[in-house]
Amino acid sequence: MKPFSLEELLQEQTVTQKVKRGEVLIEQGASSFNSFYVEKGCLRGYITDSKGKEHILQFAPETWLISNSDVLANDVISLTIDAIEDSVIRVINRNQAIETNLLEKEGLISMTNKLRKHMSFLQKRILLLLSASAEERYDDFNQMYPNLANRVPQKMIASYLGITPESLSRVRKSRINGNS
Amino acid sequence: MKPFSLEELLQEQTVTQKVKRGEVLIEQGASSFNSFYVEKGCLRGYITDSKGKEHILQFAPETWLISNSDVLANDVISLTIDAIEDSVIRVINRNQAIETNLLEKEGLISMTNKLRKHMSFLQKRILLLLSASAEERYDDFNQMYPNLANRVPQKMIASYLGITPESLSRVRKSRINGNS
Repeated sequence: MKPFSLEELLQEQTVTQKVKRGEVLIEQGASSFNSFYVEKGCLRGYITDSKGKEHILQFAPETWLISNSDVLANDVISLTIDAIEDSVIRVINRNQAIETNLLEKEGLISMTNKLRKHMSFLQKRILLLLSASAEERYDDFNQMYPNLANRVPQKMIASYLGITPESLSRVRKSRINGNS
Repeated sequence: MKPFSLEELLQEQTVTQKVKRGEVLIEQGASSFNSFYVEKGCLRGYITDSKGKEHILQFAPETWLISNSDVLANDVISLTIDAIEDSVIRVINRNQAIETNLLEKEGLISMTNKLRKHMSFLQKRILLLLSASAEERYDDFNQMYPNLANRVPQKMIASYLGITPESLSRVRKSRINGNS
């Protein structure tokens, strides 16, 4: 029987790799054909703006995929990807994936479903950035990344939410006190 | 020979449909298995928040795809989709697509590439909302949607950018005067 899910295909065709907390996998601006699937730990994708401020696009805890830029999309963005915990990952090389059965029909359907799901999350995040309060954004973060709030430095969560660490501290207090 | 691009598959398997400016194709909250491919004109996807304010997630001019929610992603968002110009569209029914060769390998690769490209645009937009000035966001809008700035009401562009119409007016003046 053919393997169906992306996870099964990855187990069949890639090897695991350990990365240490703080290790940089790709630097912003570098072009790369690699994506990373996280089995354990947590990676992070972010840009540093011209003023040196970091803006986090994505956390990638267990079962998430992350890549820094998309050759098909003419490299419209390019992230730095680093490990914020000791992690175990699988590296997916795009050229290799094209040559193997990662792109057979079953793998493609699984990949397409993953992309569509991720796209919906991105769309929701845009709408939240346009319309929602800091509290609503924090609730969404917790829904999207269950249990990550206690694993990740508060400064990084504030960066992800687009608010100051002081605002985040206020939001967390209001949530702990049971306000909704 | 098998058709390769999504456009060719759509021409083979769907019919065109005319919609009038102002016509609503899907109401926010309605669940739908339809996506819309725009041949001519322009559709818009937006939410209305609890205060009655509209927030535009996406414009869909010629060659764009738009859908209101994703069943696979547990309906994390749901948009109203309407026509902001008289338009010619193709309706893609998801259940039908699964049964036909839209999901054959060639169609899937084409669809996956389109999704990845769109995902990169969404990621870039998030980073712009987190980090960029109104001017930079307006430049990005023009890059993403060439020539749309003169077709779409200014109020809608301001909503898409997450700025007030007054700020947009200031930005446009500065761009016309050649400041960058």
